[in-house]
Amino acid sequence: MTLISAEEVAKHNTYQDCWVIIYDKVYNLSKFLPEHPGGVGVILEQAGKDSTIVFGRIHPQGIIQQYLPPDACLGLVDPATIIETSKPEIEQRREAIKNKPHLTEILNLYDFEAVASQILTKETYAFYSCAADDEISYRENHNAFHRIWLRPRVMRDVTHIDISTKILGYHSSFPLFISPTALGKLAHPLGEVVLTRAAHSHGIIQMVPNFASCSFDELTSARKEGQIQFFQLYINKNRDVTKKVVQAAQEKGCKAIFVTVDVPGLGNREKDARMKYVGALPDNQKGNDLELNRGASRLFSSLMDPSLNWNDIKWLRSITSLPIVIKGIQTSEDAILAAEYGCDGIMLSNHGGRQLDFAPSAIEILPEVIKSLKRLGLLDKVEVYIDGGIRRGTDIFKALALGAKAVGIGRPLLYAMSSYGQAGVERALQILKDEFETAMRLSGANTIADICPNMVDIRSLSNHTFTPKDYLFSNVYDRLSPRRSKL
Amino acid sequence: MTLISAEEVAKHNTYQDCWVIIYDKVYNLSKFLPEHPGGVGVILEQAGKDSTIVFGRIHPQGIIQQYLPPDACLGLVDPATIIETSKPEIEQRREAIKNKPHLTEILNLYDFEAVASQILTKETYAFYSCAADDEISYRENHNAFHRIWLRPRVMRDVTHIDISTKILGYHSSFPLFISPTALGKLAHPLGEVVLTRAAHSHGIIQMVPNFASCSFDELTSARKEGQIQFFQLYINKNRDVTKKVVQAAQEKGCKAIFVTVDVPGLGNREKDARMKYVGALPDNQKGNDLELNRGASRLFSSLMDPSLNWNDIKWLRSITSLPIVIKGIQTSEDAILAAEYGCDGIMLSNHGGRQLDFAPSAIEILPEVIKSLKRLGLLDKVEVYIDGGIRRGTDIFKALALGAKAVGIGRPLLYAMSSYGQAGVERALQILKDEFETAMRLSGANTIADICPNMVDIRSLSNHTFTPKDYLFSNVYDRLSPRRSKL
Amino acid sequence: MTLISAEEVAKHNTYQDCWVIIYDKVYNLSKFLPEHPGGVGVILEQAGKDSTIVFGRIHPQGIIQQYLPPDACLGLVDPATIIETSKPEIEQRREAIKNKPHLTEILNLYDFEAVASQILTKETYAFYSCAADDEISYRENHNAFHRIWLRPRVMRDVTHIDISTKILGYHSSFPLFISPTALGKLAHPLGEVVLTRAAHSHGIIQMVPNFASCSFDELTSARKEGQIQFFQLYINKNRDVTKKVVQAAQEKGCKAIFVTVDVPGLGNREKDARMKYVGALPDNQKGNDLELNRGASRLFSSLMDPSLNWNDIKWLRSITSLPIVIKGIQTSEDAILAAEYGCDGIMLSNHGGRQLDFAPSAIEILPEVIKSLKRLGLLDKVEVYIDGGIRRGTDIFKALALGAKAVGIGRPLLYAMSSYGQAGVERALQILKDEFETAMRLSGANTIADICPNMVDIRSLSNHTFTPKDYLFSNVYDRLSPRRSKL
Amino acid sequence: MTLISAEEVAKHNTYQDCWVIIYDKVYNLSKFLPEHPGGVGVILEQAGKDSTIVFGRIHPQGIIQQYLPPDACLGLVDPATIIETSKPEIEQRREAIKNKPHLTEILNLYDFEAVASQILTKETYAFYSCAADDEISYRENHNAFHRIWLRPRVMRDVTHIDISTKILGYHSSFPLFISPTALGKLAHPLGEVVLTRAAHSHGIIQMVPNFASCSFDELTSARKEGQIQFFQLYINKNRDVTKKVVQAAQEKGCKAIFVTVDVPGLGNREKDARMKYVGALPDNQKGNDLELNRGASRLFSSLMDPSLNWNDIKWLRSITSLPIVIKGIQTSEDAILAAEYGCDGIMLSNHGGRQLDFAPSAIEILPEVIKSLKRLGLLDKVEVYIDGGIRRGTDIFKALALGAKAVGIGRPLLYAMSSYGQAGVERALQILKDEFETAMRLSGANTIADICPNMVDIRSLSNHTFTPKDYLFSNVYDRLSPRRSKL
Repeated sequence: MTLISAEEVAKHNTYQDCWVIIYDKVYNLSKFLPEHPGGVGVILEQAGKDSTIVFGRIHPQGIIQQYLPPDACLGLVDPATIIETSKPEIEQRREAIKNKPHLTEILNLYDFEAVASQILTKETYAFYSCAADDEISYRENHNAFHRIWLRPRVMRDVTHIDISTKILGYHSSFPLFISPTALGKLAHPLGEVVLTRAAHSHGIIQMVPNFASCSFDELTSARKEGQIQFFQLYINKNRDVTKKVVQAAQEKGCKAIFVTVDVPGLGNREKDARMKYVGALPDNQKGNDLELNRGASRLFSSLMDPSLNWNDIKWLRSITSLPIVIKGIQTSEDAILAAEYGCDGIMLSNHGGRQLDFAPSAIEILPEVIKSLKRLGLLDKVEVYIDGGIRRGTDIFKALALGAKAVGIGRPLLYAMSSYGQAGVERALQILKDEFETAMRLSGANTIADICPNMVDIRSLSNHTFTPKDYLFSNVYDRLSPRRSKL
Repeated sequence: MTLISAEEVAKHNTYQDCWVIIYDKVYNLSKFLPEHPGGVGVILEQAGKDSTIVFGRIHPQGIIQQYLPPDACLGLVDPATIIETSKPEIEQRREAIKNKPHLTEILNLYDFEAVASQILTKETYAFYSCAADDEISYRENHNAFHRIWLRPRVMRDVTHIDISTKILGYHSSFPLFISPTALGKLAHPLGEVVLTRAAHSHGIIQMVPNFASCSFDELTSARKEGQIQFFQLYINKNRDVTKKVVQAAQEKGCKAIFVTVDVPGLGNREKDARMKYVGALPDNQKGNDLELNRGASRLFSSLMDPSLNWNDIKWLRSITSLPIVIKGIQTSEDAILAAEYGCDGIMLSNHGGRQLDFAPSAIEILPEVIKSLKRLGLLDKVEVYIDGGIRRGTDIFKALALGAKAVGIGRPLLYAMSSYGQAGVERALQILKDEFETAMRLSGANTIADICPNMVDIRSLSNHTFTPKDYLFSNVYDRLSPRRSKL
Repeated sequence: MTLISAEEVAKHNTYQDCWVIIYDKVYNLSKFLPEHPGGVGVILEQAGKDSTIVFGRIHPQGIIQQYLPPDACLGLVDPATIIETSKPEIEQRREAIKNKPHLTEILNLYDFEAVASQILTKETYAFYSCAADDEISYRENHNAFHRIWLRPRVMRDVTHIDISTKILGYHSSFPLFISPTALGKLAHPLGEVVLTRAAHSHGIIQMVPNFASCSFDELTSARKEGQIQFFQLYINKNRDVTKKVVQAAQEKGCKAIFVTVDVPGLGNREKDARMKYVGALPDNQKGNDLELNRGASRLFSSLMDPSLNWNDIKWLRSITSLPIVIKGIQTSEDAILAAEYGCDGIMLSNHGGRQLDFAPSAIEILPEVIKSLKRLGLLDKVEVYIDGGIRRGTDIFKALALGAKAVGIGRPLLYAMSSYGQAGVERALQILKDEFETAMRLSGANTIADICPNMVDIRSLSNHTFTPKDYLFSNVYDRLSPRRSKL
Repeated sequence: MTLISAEEVAKHNTYQDCWVIIYDKVYNLSKFLPEHPGGVGVILEQAGKDSTIVFGRIHPQGIIQQYLPPDACLGLVDPATIIETSKPEIEQRREAIKNKPHLTEILNLYDFEAVASQILTKETYAFYSCAADDEISYRENHNAFHRIWLRPRVMRDVTHIDISTKILGYHSSFPLFISPTALGKLAHPLGEVVLTRAAHSHGIIQMVPNFASCSFDELTSARKEGQIQFFQLYINKNRDVTKKVVQAAQEKGCKAIFVTVDVPGLGNREKDARMKYVGALPDNQKGNDLELNRGASRLFSSLMDPSLNWNDIKWLRSITSLPIVIKGIQTSEDAILAAEYGCDGIMLSNHGGRQLDFAPSAIEILPEVIKSLKRLGLLDKVEVYIDGGIRRGTDIFKALALGAKAVGIGRPLLYAMSSYGQAGVERALQILKDEFETAMRLSGANTIADICPNMVDIRSLSNHTFTPKDYLFSNVYDRLSPRRSKL
């Protein structure tokens, strides 16, 4: 194979002429560039550089062979010509890693996020933490819990607290499961398999992401004896692809299908989009060439089908015997439809605030959904779950008091995994379990069944008078100040 | 013509003795000064200086000949005596222009405003951004949207989203038109004609401002084949002037008259007024000589008639066959009157918060207006529009869900035009279109007609418990602090 | 007379041995100290010093002869021994005075306050601006206006706006009068007489303070032809004193008596109290010697009678034919009582927030008071006024829309007087008039009678969910922060 | 006894090998470590050091002999080898002590807290001030008072104000008692006995803490003639222990038993927990070794019985004739049960926000509790008290207006004691008395019985739209900012 110097590669760094190094090989991506499912921007940023690390964390092995023709590989990079560069940002992250707090010093889920924000690359942290538009819904997801107050009962014997429950009939040590998240290898080289292992340690259920950075096989193979996994499904434009995926999930032992329905198109996530403009831009762009701005999120949008509708649920029912749960319900009207279409569960979610800003938080709509289902006699037919904004044991307690069977949690576990790997995820889960048990004990509830609606006060839940701060608007507003003497 | 040195001109810089240079000619404005429609202050600031740039951006060509007697022109400035001065502020603006973000880096309307605030002169930015008194209504215009939450429907086939609509029967690619704004040449040398061109590119309607810095003919002539313009009208104290203006608008092909009714007098705009006191002041002023304080806004006040009333609408109806829309309605009572007086449309507006502080936002009163009109069977007779505070696609979605036919937008396009000209305005519009389409898709609405009231939650809309911060009051308040040990 | 050196005086600076210099004379105040109506603290601060300026601004001339025995005067200070000292604080205030903005640069009442806070001594500013406890009511007085929104009517001929009204039958150019305030000489050497003159210039009514720093005769003598004054009354423990004062007020031509009823004891005003501990303290004090802490406010407390009750109104009625107004009503219950006891007016007030923290603002209770009086048919018998928190023309407009006949204003005029004397007060009043006229014009009201309840939206007025920030509590709270890597 | 050098002791500083110096003796605690009721962490922090001060402040004398076998004592530390070290933190605290404000400069309870935060060790301040989770309930306890407004009545003769009352039939000069708090010796070397003495000076009742740092005998012996003490009881897992304690309380003259029922387990208090990780950690810990993190709070948890229930009240009734009050009721349901079980009083409390975050404040639930008891005719049978968040006289006034018989206060007195000892506590109580008397006088209430529900406005009390700021969430949130030119 030809040896090519790193200096030579560095010259090919434009839209028209784009080379990159991956696993020591030099590829010419000029032709592939416009077809990249993840968008042009993410590749252009790597143009002329060694993108092994970035590439490897996102893509499963072997994908190059699938997408690129053999002649795209120009040769091997000459190892002698590679210059290690050390950017201040990298230095800072190294320091952060070196000085990270001991895991026992981590007392709550915010600590994990604070450390992760120092240790992850700016791009990864932006991708994980980003949300739609002004991130109002993202913050509302958490804030809504703060408008719910507790009504603790005392003088009940709470010596023995049992926090275990059943989800779709399967035992779980805790009414919480791991929600699917993408690009886990950006947080940890082993990717989502770390979550699988931690889920096993804690006896909880993992929902296997449709677009994990580990392959589906890796994730199901990592499952231990007796461990339960559910499968998150994005319905592909090509229903045959979906059919294969669903049947594989069933064969590989997943116990339920969670169909994500809140992504008929991708939300506007600006933190992520901003990350893509650090490097050079092609010269020929115009004012309304908006396509470049999408960041890592763009990767997935082409895979989702905007035509998805209730008939697809009938079809899905016809190809699998697994329980079907709709993930992304945001109104009581749709909750009723889901039950009427024979679904086994409903997951109230606004996709972590990443899709439509001002979509309500799951916890806010939960009481209305439960009430509607109960009124129509449908509550026995579906289980209701929520996700979004959960950071404390009391949040989980509130969700259960309002009728949720269980809650999902996503980002916080990625943050825990980023800095502390499996031990971090395990500690995060332990913290939540301890906090939840404390909430039960101090509220006078010994079992999950004891947690009831009159243990919470939701009178202010739907009051949106005070909304999360609008930082962009506030930042550009020029504040009035009085005229003073100049001193 | 006599040559006069710049040094000589500089000496004549007082209220009693005021010379200025305009297009290389030296004028003695001492007599004209008290009669200047724009107020004494704005001229005094230029006394003794070359005011060509400031003058040229505000006034149409040929206006000097209309207002000044020939002997006011004293001669030509001696070009050899002109000294270029470079103030730090100018330097800073030049740097800002040089380093402005690439247009593709602009992701939302706030980015445009942030850049414009660096690039415009302090005076221009103050004039554009200013609002009445404590600017509570200005900020409430935006904040009110944040008290409205969405109710997104899922599982609807949203492959094909159509965001086009009709306004007064005319096709628009988007339920948004360009609201009239004044002094566009302060943002861009070509003035409002830039907006005309961008409106054409995007297939949307422009409302031609009555007091544009481009002449009416320039703006209507810039119209392309098939492009629609409406005309904003201020009713002049002299109705003959108004009659001519209206008939010209009709002849030049404007398709509707929007009568501005919320300016019987000018609001108190302090940011603008503060700008006028940088320079020297006449010696003879007293404590209650308030007339000087009005800034650029003053320019227009003399042209508006405080006697305007509903009989004028009857008269207007008699002189034009164009649809008549009342712009500046702020109560359901007046909305009903407008409909009863046979108007074709109602534009709810508090003039961007520039007139009466604590006037409600258009979006807040919209539901009440729609309800009142519907109750009286008047909703079929009038279209309802709103403006004020719109910055995101979801804002437009909310307005339409509550019954607005379309929304107007003003300041953000001036900001886009300031730094990026026509391409900037086009991108701003594209961003709004994309955001709006995303809001439709993620809410399950394929067409404008699908956007319905139960897609929004307005339970907190009229709750004013939490108001925009009162910066002046807060700034002068001396905060309590506890007594501590001094260390 | 003996000459005494300033150095010698300086040695007598304790509780037991306290000398001061007043108008060049040296007095031994050791015996008088415990009896000083203004408290021990204020004198101790001056012990050993020349207190002429401080003394002169608070006390009328000749008061020394009334209170001190002749032998308290020890002699004259030796002028040769006086050393002018220049403290940094004084320097800073001089700079502030030198550089104060030109009066035409003052655009609103906050500007006056901002300048006054730089120009007044710390002690005076603290005395003027202070309020009770955490100053919640003080700020609420203003904030409550922000929970009232306007409902502006358009298309009414508003060419001629008349802002004049009648108060107790007397013409006023503006529905605003000057509320009584104490210690005016701290703001301006001429004291409250400045306000008398400005009131005349503007054709408005002044309420003469019972405890002015000018004498009652000075203030009534300053009245011009046709000018109206009301008299503020504190009922003295000795009713004979009160009787004389009331009859003097009537004889000197005051047209109404405003009985202050909200000071049966003094509020806890900490800004003022803190000022008194800069200097040395007597040695013998103990932990619960709270009496020292009262500051300038203490001056007045001994003069007010806590036994004041409704029978005193009957008695007052018997000794004067002037209209009687109760100042300091804070509930509808007491408003009804006042009307039933035959009062001619009710002034809703919480004493500028200086008495009881969490007392409601006058503007909040106004609608309830008007409603109660109307229900009992008493509204024709009494006029209702309010004060507290008024800073803008829209505030006055709101008060009138809710049923107030007029409003009072206090502190802002002291601030205007501090830096700009009579011209400042006149400008402050002109600003308010202009703002108020603008509010009327833009709301479609031509006369005071046109201002009606449906021009305001008070749905959020009594919502106290969001309270003024509690600075002391907030300042001592140790905020949680997450654990991070140390970098 | 063997002499051991301090250097030698310093080497034994690990989990496996842990020596400490207490009162000049060297102890090997390696075996005792895992059994320490206060947790491993607090001892490990002292490993290898002289812990006399820390130990002595927490433990009663003689406790070493109770818990340690004789051979745990290895010898005496060689005095010659002790090196005094002076850490910057200690220096800073010394400065703070030296420069603390004179007691007469302390005007309110916040001043005491501000000074205490400078003077106490970080550990002690964290232990005193800490609360559960995000400390929302802790701050809500205070904030809830701010949602209650007053309705002051005027024109009532308030010459003679009597603030005295009866609590369980015992005279108290003031409707306030001293709540029990732990570890008082951390604030003052004499411990809680200081509070006993101050309570006597002021004629108020002290509740003797079950876990005081002074012994029970010390506290009851410090009682003066006629002084009243109540006893706080934690029910021990071993009821025989409880029985002895209760009978001792009765014998020693305590007049009531307050059973604490809100600690079936310990709350999650992170400020306290964070303090414990300054020093080294054992090597063998894993991710879910959460037991180490508990801080000083851990000390008590093992002593409380989670099985506590209403039957225990029946039993308690059978072993003592003293009045029984339940401390820690948080719902009207439990208030009714307490009354039905024959308790003599109910203390509404969320344990100063230290147990369950989002537990409601006592003041919020008070009206509902009073209403429920009244409805069932139970209000005559029980007295109701509250604690939590009281900092001002108006807070006490509000509680009484809403039906509380008296209020308890805890932390503020510890802060007062920290810096000023008994005189500080006395002044703190005097400030509260003065503020309360002022509130009564200015509200028109002469006696406690005059304070009635219509003197307060509670319409916003249960509105939780605006919650205390969530500092951890807010701190990790990465705020959006617009794109600007780089200058």
